[in-house]
Amino acid sequence: MSRIRAGVFGGSGYAGLDLVEILAAHSQIDLVFATSNSYAGEPVPETNLRFVPSMDVSLADVDVIFLALPHKASADVAKMGVDAGVKVVDLSADLRLDSPAAYERSYQTPHPQPDLLPTPYGLPEINRAKICQADVVATPGCYPTTALLGLYPLLQFAAIERDAPIIVDAKSGVTGAGRKPSLTTHFAEVYGNLIPYKTGRSHRHVGELEQETHKLDEEVGPVIFCPHLLPVDRGLMASIYVSLNNSMTSDQAHDAYTEVFGSEALVDVLPLGEQATLKHAVKTNKCVISITPVLERYVHITSVTDNLRKGAASQAVQNMNLMFGIEETLGLI
Amino acid sequence: MSRIRAGVFGGSGYAGLDLVEILAAHSQIDLVFATSNSYAGEPVPETNLRFVPSMDVSLADVDVIFLALPHKASADVAKMGVDAGVKVVDLSADLRLDSPAAYERSYQTPHPQPDLLPTPYGLPEINRAKICQADVVATPGCYPTTALLGLYPLLQFAAIERDAPIIVDAKSGVTGAGRKPSLTTHFAEVYGNLIPYKTGRSHRHVGELEQETHKLDEEVGPVIFCPHLLPVDRGLMASIYVSLNNSMTSDQAHDAYTEVFGSEALVDVLPLGEQATLKHAVKTNKCVISITPVLERYVHITSVTDNLRKGAASQAVQNMNLMFGIEETLGLI
Amino acid sequence: MSRIRAGVFGGSGYAGLDLVEILAAHSQIDLVFATSNSYAGEPVPETNLRFVPSMDVSLADVDVIFLALPHKASADVAKMGVDAGVKVVDLSADLRLDSPAAYERSYQTPHPQPDLLPTPYGLPEINRAKICQADVVATPGCYPTTALLGLYPLLQFAAIERDAPIIVDAKSGVTGAGRKPSLTTHFAEVYGNLIPYKTGRSHRHVGELEQETHKLDEEVGPVIFCPHLLPVDRGLMASIYVSLNNSMTSDQAHDAYTEVFGSEALVDVLPLGEQATLKHAVKTNKCVISITPVLERYVHITSVTDNLRKGAASQAVQNMNLMFGIEETLGLI
Amino acid sequence: MSRIRAGVFGGSGYAGLDLVEILAAHSQIDLVFATSNSYAGEPVPETNLRFVPSMDVSLADVDVIFLALPHKASADVAKMGVDAGVKVVDLSADLRLDSPAAYERSYQTPHPQPDLLPTPYGLPEINRAKICQADVVATPGCYPTTALLGLYPLLQFAAIERDAPIIVDAKSGVTGAGRKPSLTTHFAEVYGNLIPYKTGRSHRHVGELEQETHKLDEEVGPVIFCPHLLPVDRGLMASIYVSLNNSMTSDQAHDAYTEVFGSEALVDVLPLGEQATLKHAVKTNKCVISITPVLERYVHITSVTDNLRKGAASQAVQNMNLMFGIEETLGLI
Repeated sequence: MSRIRAGVFGGSGYAGLDLVEILAAHSQIDLVFATSNSYAGEPVPETNLRFVPSMDVSLADVDVIFLALPHKASADVAKMGVDAGVKVVDLSADLRLDSPAAYERSYQTPHPQPDLLPTPYGLPEINRAKICQADVVATPGCYPTTALLGLYPLLQFAAIERDAPIIVDAKSGVTGAGRKPSLTTHFAEVYGNLIPYKTGRSHRHVGELEQETHKLDEEVGPVIFCPHLLPVDRGLMASIYVSLNNSMTSDQAHDAYTEVFGSEALVDVLPLGEQATLKHAVKTNKCVISITPVLERYVHITSVTDNLRKGAASQAVQNMNLMFGIEETLGLI
Repeated sequence: MSRIRAGVFGGSGYAGLDLVEILAAHSQIDLVFATSNSYAGEPVPETNLRFVPSMDVSLADVDVIFLALPHKASADVAKMGVDAGVKVVDLSADLRLDSPAAYERSYQTPHPQPDLLPTPYGLPEINRAKICQADVVATPGCYPTTALLGLYPLLQFAAIERDAPIIVDAKSGVTGAGRKPSLTTHFAEVYGNLIPYKTGRSHRHVGELEQETHKLDEEVGPVIFCPHLLPVDRGLMASIYVSLNNSMTSDQAHDAYTEVFGSEALVDVLPLGEQATLKHAVKTNKCVISITPVLERYVHITSVTDNLRKGAASQAVQNMNLMFGIEETLGLI
Repeated sequence: MSRIRAGVFGGSGYAGLDLVEILAAHSQIDLVFATSNSYAGEPVPETNLRFVPSMDVSLADVDVIFLALPHKASADVAKMGVDAGVKVVDLSADLRLDSPAAYERSYQTPHPQPDLLPTPYGLPEINRAKICQADVVATPGCYPTTALLGLYPLLQFAAIERDAPIIVDAKSGVTGAGRKPSLTTHFAEVYGNLIPYKTGRSHRHVGELEQETHKLDEEVGPVIFCPHLLPVDRGLMASIYVSLNNSMTSDQAHDAYTEVFGSEALVDVLPLGEQATLKHAVKTNKCVISITPVLERYVHITSVTDNLRKGAASQAVQNMNLMFGIEETLGLI
Repeated sequence: MSRIRAGVFGGSGYAGLDLVEILAAHSQIDLVFATSNSYAGEPVPETNLRFVPSMDVSLADVDVIFLALPHKASADVAKMGVDAGVKVVDLSADLRLDSPAAYERSYQTPHPQPDLLPTPYGLPEINRAKICQADVVATPGCYPTTALLGLYPLLQFAAIERDAPIIVDAKSGVTGAGRKPSLTTHFAEVYGNLIPYKTGRSHRHVGELEQETHKLDEEVGPVIFCPHLLPVDRGLMASIYVSLNNSMTSDQAHDAYTEVFGSEALVDVLPLGEQATLKHAVKTNKCVISITPVLERYVHITSVTDNLRKGAASQAVQNMNLMFGIEETLGLI
């Protein structure tokens, strides 16, 4: 098979840099360009390229584009990609929600390209078949990826107690907040600190989380989502608390996870009794999950990823591999 | 009033060091000795004393002893203190549980001094009257202090939904694990990591937490307690998730907290909309609490302390102040 | 004696915040205002004040002003203070160099208020007499303070080998870079890193360092100054390497330090064999120094401060105490 | 060529773990065993092996052994390897010094296997020819590797001023102190700290450093070596200060470095004006060097490595590649 020519929009942010690093080492990819308006002219790490302004690239040179752009900016480039007949892997939030109305609810702005919706949701372990057929894929964010993988077997088995809240206490490294300097990401503000923010139901990812949980089991209750800024550079932990219904005891939950994820190369389920720590996932392309039975019908799940890898860049590459019909984990293990 | 002569057992651990620092600056205290078997002969920071072996001190020289000792070791010294007629502020776990049977359940060993039980539980904001009358007080641990203060107003108003689990997702700085070197506290193991441990109902503090929640409201459900080791030196955050019953909406919760804690000098309730971060409490003697209404009957509470201060040393001094009838916050604000 | 009314310009930067905290607890000070254009209206921590825009304050309300402002902005406010007859403690770089020409060499801009030069250099352990007489004092920066105190006894005894370079390998916590967000201070850029910058003779503080070393011993050689950004929030270490001349052996150096600093409350000289670590100084108002004889005529000195305290805010208060004839260490120990 | 069968002694320390990871991914290596007495029975990360006690392995199964053992223990295993006819790559200090007397001076104990001395010093960029011929190689420590590579071009050109001290102010991540728990490596002691230790000429590596500098230029002066414990897990920076003689100006130094290291795959010399930071080297197998001219005859060099990679494990593999006549960088780039 011939090699795939790829371009990256937004290559100098943290997710973009990891994406470029993975693509540069991918045996089937020729990385043709990486755009960055702020770093135009500077070398692209791990490659012989230099960053170019997004104005200066031609979609005729590539087979696929990756969009590591801010929301609102991304959809327009996705549309150009579609029109030019190249495949599009979007890492922004623009294509994750299924309807313009849902987008406007979460992002308080009209959707820039409503015709693109709905786009297949790029979480391969849950949505592989649709991704394989797609020309455009919306790669989920780090919080939804980590939380949804941590919940998926229970949703799949319809084992979650109807209407009970699903608690997701999440902790993310600072790269999750992006590379743009702000007081929030100033070293001296974060160091030695732990900072909850937009807790409850006010974070933008709640809409995305509930859209996907309801696709899998429409009777599950609301997601209560409390993210925290953790004083580390990378890594994301979702600590999940769930009531089970009568169909499953907490002692049976671990078997459900090993059954569902047993053949997944990029999801590790730890043996009962072991706890998933941040370091299990940092600088890997995997999601690592541990399950703790708590009460007969109550289970605690810890799900960890590297927010820039399985939570962003490596999942985007996994999606691309599927879209081009090549080995799903090529360049990732 | 005459000055109080105090001695500290176990002065070279992290809680002991903070205790010595607070006592050395306390206007009514003469610090007579600080014991340490490992550091005997070395200077006691912030004082002119040197650490002495516990064998070498005389209880006749003091009015009060503080026990910053490991559990099992502490109860015997407490007993000696009682027999010698000095007041005892225990910081270990030995006197926190009300019965020898409960102690044995949590600590898998018979209680060394069952006659000392029950001892008044030294959480002044909840149990002030009993502490004022006591000669021996059991200062609670950092996790129970932080979680119980975070729950107290809801327990006080009997506002927690009957039988619903109370979720406490907790994160503690490494000093909480003690000063004894181990792989668990090795810098390279903790750095860049976040480590859940003894999650669910297996941590020893669950018994202490439920003993106290049930004293306040015997109908509340089980505590689900998931502690994490956080890559910082100090500070403890308890992230609490609670279902309310029909007596209170989540929008009314904040008023309950300001009413209950309004006159407390060492508990700060933040305005609605602000989140308590670790830095609100680190190196202070306070507990800082924020409340977020999530659903009509669901509330998220963040409670933070410095694990070595309000979670240990400063709370011990607060107890002592009460036991001697002096200003409760002397030396603490 | 009547109380001193003080105002702080630039109270919301890191040095300004420490300054406000120290002044708020100072027994002879009434803090009248703290300005901040960015945080106007927000509460001033540890006080009942709110930050006000600098336009809104009146110098008639105060006896002394502290200027924690950027260079170039500070000199003009200093001039207004002088004209209004209030004492001025400047923490910026504007008044540290003795001549407009020297200022222009280091800062590439004409001096905004050349008439104010020379201003007494506010390093009390070296320059106490002049500070006591002064109405305006230039508080030195964190690097020069730490390096000069580390060198002072050798300069005082004229013990440094003529013309030999004086090496200062310095490491500073991130608050030293200020509170304004930038990629340089982004958590993810600093975390796990150590970053040398402006090494050799290109840092602006070289001029200030050499001005002061030459005042004390005009025959000493050039200062080679290599600062590094350290992944901690506070603390500054100057590692100093010096050749001695025939007047002193390295074994005699320690005695020189204890003689010179023996009666200084805010400089600690450690016993021979102990090394000064960052934690010796962090959150204290002291400079802590250790001396290691290396070769017969070569000595290694480690000098540490908290860059925001003895390297900025607490030294400013020390200067003010001297300028008003009150106890030099009031509010500082 | 047939594959190389390798065994690792001491595979569960930090250097051992990196070594196992590199060997497991090396295309010409079959990793046969990794010993660990403390972790016997546990899985060896990145492999299908389990750690075995050193008693249980047979040298008949391997072609080469790597010794990531403590000094004094290592030499005896090296001797067994030599006797068994397998190649030996020692990572300990036992074989680095050329004579038993030098060893005893630095390590205060008689050499366990004096017949093995002298062993070729395994710094390939300096000593490649001898390593290619050797059956036993002594891989240098992280400090000497980083400092010697930083000095090598100047030594090679005999450009260092005769008798002038060579200053090496070094900073190492905590993994450099080993995995054995101690108060020195306790998270709470290191966090927020910077700790100089064994400064001047008292560290054991001074002997090794001077042995090698004098082989290259016997007229250079003493090495003054001041290591510091840095609050990060990995990475080592040597900040070097050197006086040049009349044969070279500081402006010419950069050319010397690019000439000497221009064809080295594992040493990067940064362009003039850029500074080598810790992150340039962390998690890479390279040494990265920057040069700053300071005075006409004075130069500042920053040399960085990952202490567990080019400072230990990857350099050991580089040596092995040379000893077996395969591509020097196989498995390393």
